[in-house]
Amino acid sequence: MTDSEVAKVVGAVREDRLWQRHMDMAAFGATPRGGVNREALTPEFAQARQCLLGWTSERGFTSATDPIGNLFIRRPGADGAAAPVVTGSHLDTQPAGGKFDGAFGVLAALEVLEALSDAGIETKRPIELVDWMNEEGGRFQPTTMGSSVFAETLPLATVLATADREGVTIEAALAEMRGQIKTDETREFGFPMAAYVEAHIEQGPVLEATGNTIGIVTDIQGLRWFQVEVMGEEAHAGTTPRANRKDALAAAVEMIETLHRFMYDESDILRFTVGRLDVSPNTPNTVPARALFTIDFRHPDAGVLREAGDHIEEICDAHSGDCDVEVTETITSAPTIFDPAIISLIGDAARHQKLPAMEMISGATHDAKSLAPLCPSGMIFVPCAGGISHNEAESATPADLAAGAKVLAEAVVSLANR
Amino acid sequence: MTDSEVAKVVGAVREDRLWQRHMDMAAFGATPRGGVNREALTPEFAQARQCLLGWTSERGFTSATDPIGNLFIRRPGADGAAAPVVTGSHLDTQPAGGKFDGAFGVLAALEVLEALSDAGIETKRPIELVDWMNEEGGRFQPTTMGSSVFAETLPLATVLATADREGVTIEAALAEMRGQIKTDETREFGFPMAAYVEAHIEQGPVLEATGNTIGIVTDIQGLRWFQVEVMGEEAHAGTTPRANRKDALAAAVEMIETLHRFMYDESDILRFTVGRLDVSPNTPNTVPARALFTIDFRHPDAGVLREAGDHIEEICDAHSGDCDVEVTETITSAPTIFDPAIISLIGDAARHQKLPAMEMISGATHDAKSLAPLCPSGMIFVPCAGGISHNEAESATPADLAAGAKVLAEAVVSLANR
Repeated sequence: MTDSEVAKVVGAVREDRLWQRHMDMAAFGATPRGGVNREALTPEFAQARQCLLGWTSERGFTSATDPIGNLFIRRPGADGAAAPVVTGSHLDTQPAGGKFDGAFGVLAALEVLEALSDAGIETKRPIELVDWMNEEGGRFQPTTMGSSVFAETLPLATVLATADREGVTIEAALAEMRGQIKTDETREFGFPMAAYVEAHIEQGPVLEATGNTIGIVTDIQGLRWFQVEVMGEEAHAGTTPRANRKDALAAAVEMIETLHRFMYDESDILRFTVGRLDVSPNTPNTVPARALFTIDFRHPDAGVLREAGDHIEEICDAHSGDCDVEVTETITSAPTIFDPAIISLIGDAARHQKLPAMEMISGATHDAKSLAPLCPSGMIFVPCAGGISHNEAESATPADLAAGAKVLAEAVVSLANR
Repeated sequence: MTDSEVAKVVGAVREDRLWQRHMDMAAFGATPRGGVNREALTPEFAQARQCLLGWTSERGFTSATDPIGNLFIRRPGADGAAAPVVTGSHLDTQPAGGKFDGAFGVLAALEVLEALSDAGIETKRPIELVDWMNEEGGRFQPTTMGSSVFAETLPLATVLATADREGVTIEAALAEMRGQIKTDETREFGFPMAAYVEAHIEQGPVLEATGNTIGIVTDIQGLRWFQVEVMGEEAHAGTTPRANRKDALAAAVEMIETLHRFMYDESDILRFTVGRLDVSPNTPNTVPARALFTIDFRHPDAGVLREAGDHIEEICDAHSGDCDVEVTETITSAPTIFDPAIISLIGDAARHQKLPAMEMISGATHDAKSLAPLCPSGMIFVPCAGGISHNEAESATPADLAAGAKVLAEAVVSLANR
């Protein structure tokens, strides 16, 4: 393929179409405050996939799904036996999420496929769009579930038995979705891929603050998730002396407060979040018998991640008072280093297209982390307003999204002709 | 009425019947761990009232209800125009409550009415059993709702509009209950009462520890309830630097930790409880945008209650960081001093019946607090195992319950003949 052919595909990326696809997709799970609530395997999620399949089947692209419900859309290449170049992200959102986190990577991938068809260009390798199942991990934990099971870093059987708060298992929810959404094929894990490139909004403030349009992602910081269960004893709030109490919430509060102080990082690189806390029985005049909280701890340095993270359990034990405490590490994910060739290719594309770009570390985990051990992988970031994400106010501009899709098109088409 | 007639009524109190009534009543909302979940105005609550009305209508007693759903059962007296002596408690429980909290006061009252009928004795005044609506305040806040509205310390219109977590209002729940439970009459608030005596398990460890069977309650400690709402901003846990966060849960944890230290009382008389904490959106990888917690603060000394309680808002403000905080006092209840004549009468009854008894302060709030300003009022406590209450393991002995019912019978019958 000549440089002029690549330029033709990049020229066929349409900002208006890409933007309209985002607005159409945001209708599935739309919230009154302008956000999206489209958790994995909900009816809204199934509607979003049906909509996507409507667009891609019009183009004649074929669809496939695997045992964990990842969705693949293929545009064929000249060499039917060649491993595809894969690009995509996820259509699920946080319960109070926005229009762009995940959806952008899927719709930018769709835009690349449509631009290729509009430009009438055949690549050597097939190109596939992927929608990974349950990246967000809100309804079902952990995050990046579909890509992790695909990469065999999470066992399928365990994941299928995972239930949401209402007791609905992934297995049951998948069976329901399969009744609504038919794909042309089913596919096993271990399907070979030539390369994986994922486009995403930055979900942080750096690109906007520095005036860059393209983030060339070199690394994803490492992450450890913990669940801390504190068990005390229910008692009457009016009659039970402090000395006789086993107050699970009071103990949890001390643990969280101490952990915040311990994890304080002057350089503000370390990320420490207690995002979920459930109390039982959770009534004003009963001493809480149980408190369960989660810890999300991230750092780009594997050493810090290991050493600081290994202190969490001892801190919880030291502040449990008369309660029992159980600390479980639910997910461990080492820092990821992306493929140097993909990093170069994305940098070259931004330079060709005269887009201001910078190399950066991803603060968020993405499905690309699961793919990096399987094939040469990389990511492209575009700015989002104020760095706000996982929020109904999440916002990005049509021009930035189109710029990201054009860089993605150049990188993916180049890879598909190697 | 002669002393021998009083002795006849006391002798007609049946331990076996009283115990069986407790076991029968515990079937409504029975939990697998041997407790009871029978929150106000639920189907289980309506079934419990239907069961009670079945027993009382067999005896020919008449029933009445008022606009907030309190239930009254009358055994007539010789003087039809005389104000009744009222005794009772509540049939609602905590979501993970026991068989005796509330139920004992209602069933001891029933036992008094039945003993009178079995002994064939007519009192001068009518005696009424009352089941106050929503004493516990778990499903609908605040506590002692029915007796407070009856005493006009809570406005009816506000209370009717109060909703549970699913958005069901008291008004709607009451309408549904009225469809299931028919009473002979309806009654307005301000109905005159000659006296009010309530029997209850102690819900604390003192009677058991001191070997006393009867607690002669002299006071109820005062109580202040607060609701603290902390408003921050949702953000991505992986990408948002600490400096850019408005973490509502981190701020709430600092507030609660500081409040615990501020409220620390070496003498262990002060009661301070954060029993409920709700986090939103409550997912592991989103910085919490909102945290709402409750404070239950009690002390027998009105001065301590005022001064320490008045610091709560400033402590929350001082630890709100970049979040906004709103502190609302939802209920204020001054310490209650019971009527000296009723206190003497209960002490006399225990002495006549040779039951070991002691005067004590109630740590818990009870409906008797609402009645104390309306008519001479008092309370009788019996032991519960380990002082454990608001717990499925709540336990009391048949003999202690019967002893409480006999003291109640003597006090109530004496009052009904004055």
